[in-house]
Amino acid sequence: MQHGYNPPDFDEARLRDAPDARFEPAPADGVLPDDFFATSNLPTYVKVDGQWRLPRAPRMDGAIVKDPDGLRVTEGRYVRKGQPVAIGYAEDGSEGIFVHTTGFLGSAKGGGEFQFMSSEVSREKPVDYARMAELLRQERERGGHIVWVVGPAVLHSRGRDVVTWFIENGYVGALLGGNAVAVHDIEQALLGTTLGMDRTGRPVSGGHAFHMRAINRIARAGSIRKAVEQGVLTEGIMHACVVHDVPFVLAGSIRDDGPLPDTIADTVRAQELMREHATRATMTIMIATALHSIAFGNMLPAYVVEVDGALRPLTTIAVDTSEFVVSKLKDRGTHQAFGVITNAQDFLHVLRYFVEQPVNAAPHASHGVR
Amino acid sequence: MQHGYNPPDFDEARLRDAPDARFEPAPADGVLPDDFFATSNLPTYVKVDGQWRLPRAPRMDGAIVKDPDGLRVTEGRYVRKGQPVAIGYAEDGSEGIFVHTTGFLGSAKGGGEFQFMSSEVSREKPVDYARMAELLRQERERGGHIVWVVGPAVLHSRGRDVVTWFIENGYVGALLGGNAVAVHDIEQALLGTTLGMDRTGRPVSGGHAFHMRAINRIARAGSIRKAVEQGVLTEGIMHACVVHDVPFVLAGSIRDDGPLPDTIADTVRAQELMREHATRATMTIMIATALHSIAFGNMLPAYVVEVDGALRPLTTIAVDTSEFVVSKLKDRGTHQAFGVITNAQDFLHVLRYFVEQPVNAAPHASHGVR
Amino acid sequence: MQHGYNPPDFDEARLRDAPDARFEPAPADGVLPDDFFATSNLPTYVKVDGQWRLPRAPRMDGAIVKDPDGLRVTEGRYVRKGQPVAIGYAEDGSEGIFVHTTGFLGSAKGGGEFQFMSSEVSREKPVDYARMAELLRQERERGGHIVWVVGPAVLHSRGRDVVTWFIENGYVGALLGGNAVAVHDIEQALLGTTLGMDRTGRPVSGGHAFHMRAINRIARAGSIRKAVEQGVLTEGIMHACVVHDVPFVLAGSIRDDGPLPDTIADTVRAQELMREHATRATMTIMIATALHSIAFGNMLPAYVVEVDGALRPLTTIAVDTSEFVVSKLKDRGTHQAFGVITNAQDFLHVLRYFVEQPVNAAPHASHGVR
Amino acid sequence: MQHGYNPPDFDEARLRDAPDARFEPAPADGVLPDDFFATSNLPTYVKVDGQWRLPRAPRMDGAIVKDPDGLRVTEGRYVRKGQPVAIGYAEDGSEGIFVHTTGFLGSAKGGGEFQFMSSEVSREKPVDYARMAELLRQERERGGHIVWVVGPAVLHSRGRDVVTWFIENGYVGALLGGNAVAVHDIEQALLGTTLGMDRTGRPVSGGHAFHMRAINRIARAGSIRKAVEQGVLTEGIMHACVVHDVPFVLAGSIRDDGPLPDTIADTVRAQELMREHATRATMTIMIATALHSIAFGNMLPAYVVEVDGALRPLTTIAVDTSEFVVSKLKDRGTHQAFGVITNAQDFLHVLRYFVEQPVNAAPHASHGVR
Repeated sequence: MQHGYNPPDFDEARLRDAPDARFEPAPADGVLPDDFFATSNLPTYVKVDGQWRLPRAPRMDGAIVKDPDGLRVTEGRYVRKGQPVAIGYAEDGSEGIFVHTTGFLGSAKGGGEFQFMSSEVSREKPVDYARMAELLRQERERGGHIVWVVGPAVLHSRGRDVVTWFIENGYVGALLGGNAVAVHDIEQALLGTTLGMDRTGRPVSGGHAFHMRAINRIARAGSIRKAVEQGVLTEGIMHACVVHDVPFVLAGSIRDDGPLPDTIADTVRAQELMREHATRATMTIMIATALHSIAFGNMLPAYVVEVDGALRPLTTIAVDTSEFVVSKLKDRGTHQAFGVITNAQDFLHVLRYFVEQPVNAAPHASHGVR
Repeated sequence: MQHGYNPPDFDEARLRDAPDARFEPAPADGVLPDDFFATSNLPTYVKVDGQWRLPRAPRMDGAIVKDPDGLRVTEGRYVRKGQPVAIGYAEDGSEGIFVHTTGFLGSAKGGGEFQFMSSEVSREKPVDYARMAELLRQERERGGHIVWVVGPAVLHSRGRDVVTWFIENGYVGALLGGNAVAVHDIEQALLGTTLGMDRTGRPVSGGHAFHMRAINRIARAGSIRKAVEQGVLTEGIMHACVVHDVPFVLAGSIRDDGPLPDTIADTVRAQELMREHATRATMTIMIATALHSIAFGNMLPAYVVEVDGALRPLTTIAVDTSEFVVSKLKDRGTHQAFGVITNAQDFLHVLRYFVEQPVNAAPHASHGVR
Repeated sequence: MQHGYNPPDFDEARLRDAPDARFEPAPADGVLPDDFFATSNLPTYVKVDGQWRLPRAPRMDGAIVKDPDGLRVTEGRYVRKGQPVAIGYAEDGSEGIFVHTTGFLGSAKGGGEFQFMSSEVSREKPVDYARMAELLRQERERGGHIVWVVGPAVLHSRGRDVVTWFIENGYVGALLGGNAVAVHDIEQALLGTTLGMDRTGRPVSGGHAFHMRAINRIARAGSIRKAVEQGVLTEGIMHACVVHDVPFVLAGSIRDDGPLPDTIADTVRAQELMREHATRATMTIMIATALHSIAFGNMLPAYVVEVDGALRPLTTIAVDTSEFVVSKLKDRGTHQAFGVITNAQDFLHVLRYFVEQPVNAAPHASHGVR
Repeated sequence: MQHGYNPPDFDEARLRDAPDARFEPAPADGVLPDDFFATSNLPTYVKVDGQWRLPRAPRMDGAIVKDPDGLRVTEGRYVRKGQPVAIGYAEDGSEGIFVHTTGFLGSAKGGGEFQFMSSEVSREKPVDYARMAELLRQERERGGHIVWVVGPAVLHSRGRDVVTWFIENGYVGALLGGNAVAVHDIEQALLGTTLGMDRTGRPVSGGHAFHMRAINRIARAGSIRKAVEQGVLTEGIMHACVVHDVPFVLAGSIRDDGPLPDTIADTVRAQELMREHATRATMTIMIATALHSIAFGNMLPAYVVEVDGALRPLTTIAVDTSEFVVSKLKDRGTHQAFGVITNAQDFLHVLRYFVEQPVNAAPHASHGVR
């Protein structure tokens, strides 16, 4: 929380030889010259008459005004017509203004330009669905192994249909999840609810037991595959995996009800089965599951070795409503994860929308994006 | 945290006259009879030989087995073929099993059926976009006053385009927000960035000052409307409001940079302008802003008085990435708010998608939803 | 999102026979009479000249003013000296003002008084540590089985010491957790770091592997108990469990590194071991672990059967930094959970502080609480 | 999401001249040699017979085993007694193993050592209260200007008492907040509730209006100071500010009820008053308010100019239950903020506890921390 300050070396050539800062008069009250220098909160030195000076009252988002008695940082609204305002964009001293970004050694900021939005994961960052859709199509075309790791939140209404669509259309090389994702998918197929809620989110009478009835029905059939073969399970995500021969791993946890006959209760064995997909993965999409995402992230290399031996980063997309889960994934070492902070069902809807856009058309056209 | 227990009155007619519970043998090891009674964690009494008994080892998601020495709750996986398992769905005693939901007076649960997903706001609930789209279309048709309250998160890439589309297509009666939403919309229009990030989320060099340059440009023009008239501002949300005569209120806050000439720095005056829309509102959509949502929620009645004097609830949709913001809105008294926990740009994309669906077609059809 | 309105029955005796509302003049500009009726956003009827009327411009936090042309809701700041303002506290019509809380059937609110802070779990609610400390002391005195379910967040600096203190002082009947909590406790004991961070949160060089080295050391010893016996493990939470014969269950998960020899990799077996403590539990404290809290919550009855056969609720305290985890626990059926939204290490520090207060002294006295 | 790979330059001296990696036999099945090299997920080259090789099946938290047919990453549990395992700690090639941290240019990770917990703000980081307490005591001793920026969450039960204690004991140079913090402090003083809840968090009948009654009472008195002078307001935070001449700024917002006569409704004027404290601040503590923290952060320099002209960083502590608020503060440019993720009332309790510890004693001693 406290670090010493290392002042700039003003004898360094680029500072010693820098020109004086330039000033232009404000064109009107409360209006700055177009090219005003915009301040940050870091130590900022301005060269006036050959001397580097620190303006008074520093703050970010201000302008630097030359008063008769010295330099001062102020907000644009207080500038009066004709007052001299510092001009320029460069922060390296080359235009007479130097922002000392590395003065506080050991600080978290360290160095580099003053920026907004420097956090790695934030709901305030735009999501480039067109790019994700393009990567997904590329992987399918080159026969990559796209591993989906999903939590039960993907099951809500359309989310379930969209995952099924991705399976049916060849975008899923393997599906990893837990007992719950299969249970609630099957609950939906057999009884029309998820976690006892209908598709509008209303609890159904007796609904708290519906997942137990679904499990019992599969226990009687013997396995998910047998339930499909016996005509018990006729639609949904697990059905699509069976029908389209997409391998799935349902890894057990202590939260599991049942569990289903297909669920691997032994976590070491479940890790081994997941690891087989980790070593083959060429792209990974992890949606709404902290446990399975971090477990799978632990097993993943950060890169893919191509057939010719070249390396490329392993595209790893992590979707969650909370920054925390994605940050935690990174904090456990999966630094390459690209975080999307949103609702699982909406992510799936929008991703499918972009995947279905004609490849050669400008994908944003219908939305008027330039 | 501690409440006394009020046992059931077994002399009450419905309990006194209830039949004994029925039991059926388990069809196989680890498989329950189809109609097994599924337990909750609440006190559950089972009538055997005319006596109400509490099974041992209570827990939820279990079944009730009759052992030689009494009743026991267990999980399906431990049931052996032929063991007698309690049968039934009714929890009111009418089939010999009584769940005492009101035994702990003063408890948060209080009474009512044992349920999952009883929280009001959760990312784990499905979102019924088709219904929201229908309500929105109805309001437009009957000339309602649809008030949108938006935070800067709507500006990210496509979000901004979709809000503009809603304005252009008559779905926005008034737009309420703060200085930031207008600043970053205009930053995007004039300089191509939001908060100094480009459309893919990468910081742009010098970007931390772009919003200040946008503000300065509007300050020079005199107002947003004048900037449109002077050809300075040619696209985006604020431009659409001006061109389509959609009133907007930019309420000031202490976080504001600038502020823009249009921003109402006096918060009491800003409340008055917002209140004019609150008294006229027939539907409200609040997206990604705690401050403005709660402020506007405070001003809103929970209902609309129709032309004929009849009352109906005021549809109030609150969208945020965090349950906390929506719960807080409710905790401040806006109980009618329907919460959608998702990313603003995805919400807008999916809502537009459903609004554009043909009205008479099954709206889900193209997504394969039954 | 839309429900019909069921108007009040004004022929009902309590409404038909209710008196007219009373009005008093405002004592000064912007000042209301002391006993002003404070509005909510629900339909509110005011009896004037024997007629029930709806005031114009309804909103919460307002007062009702009688204008020459009717009733109007307004904010206190707009009231002028002498204007007649409605008076009273009763909302049931008995003082001439009736708030119709049940008008919108099927609405989430349903009925009951208009309230703030109706959500069950919120960081905005006070936490009654004195009461929790009292319950904890009572359980210890009567020889209850207090089950602690903990995640690795309890390990941070003082948190670890406080858990150890609770073990040493007889407040822990069993400790349930995962591989990680033991691994990082042992990492701390052997190498001085947690997750590779030192006690101030700074990453240590090579620290990413420290937990692996800790696991390897225990693997060599054969088990945690053997490591204690061999003098390898000399302090910390797991050490205290061994020395004080507090049983622990380390339930396996697919995220586990190692795992430790003591970790139960088979999740069905781990459930069985946890369930033994669930059936005996008389109080439960769950800290900073969604997986283990929800798993254990699933196994817990909502009540304890006392020796004399009487039932009382099972005190269940759930601590997490996020409302989501606690709400999810409740949404999975553990309705009795009392949520504390805070940081694990601070919870532990404050709980110990209150447990250590002299029992008969006013526990808040030293903090000046009345 | 995709970046090219820049392989290491194996002709560089440090790699060309590096020794072969060393291997030692595993001492037992599932046990690694003490000094095993622990893998990360980054490209890792191992020198064998003078050749740099990439082991197969890379992942983090593994060991490198030499098989007859090459190198392989595996988990410790699969190693068999006697298998040769790579040894060493250095990741720079000097011991024959090279982790190529900068291979993926443009990646978020960029370079630097593979680490866990690299995120800047996380509930999973320990909080060094002893250090914060020491800084606070130092500032008081040297007459610094400690600015507290607080949201209403500080008011819950003991939180309010502790803030009052800090004011009374000279640790508060100025108190900045909004209308709500003063309203609910005064509601507590006059009516015993906060947001209509009593000290245990239970809603009180009629409680939704208590804050309006508190406001009305101050409106009648004329101001907070007058209410103190008239004996209306006799305890609490605002009372302590008046009595101890601690300046406060209550900045207005559109969410304000009332507002109180002391609240500055004009946000530009409120900014000016806050800014006076920003320019004088030598330490800042921001608790549980996004709006006021970010507003004040915008005004703050990142440093303090000492009397002798030397610069030091401005200690800025930001406390919130959510990582998001602290990350947002940083994303708006206040990079120097040190985040504490916890509950406001617990933060205050623990901070006071450490401030009260004897300065020269080991502050942790009573908690058994080494």
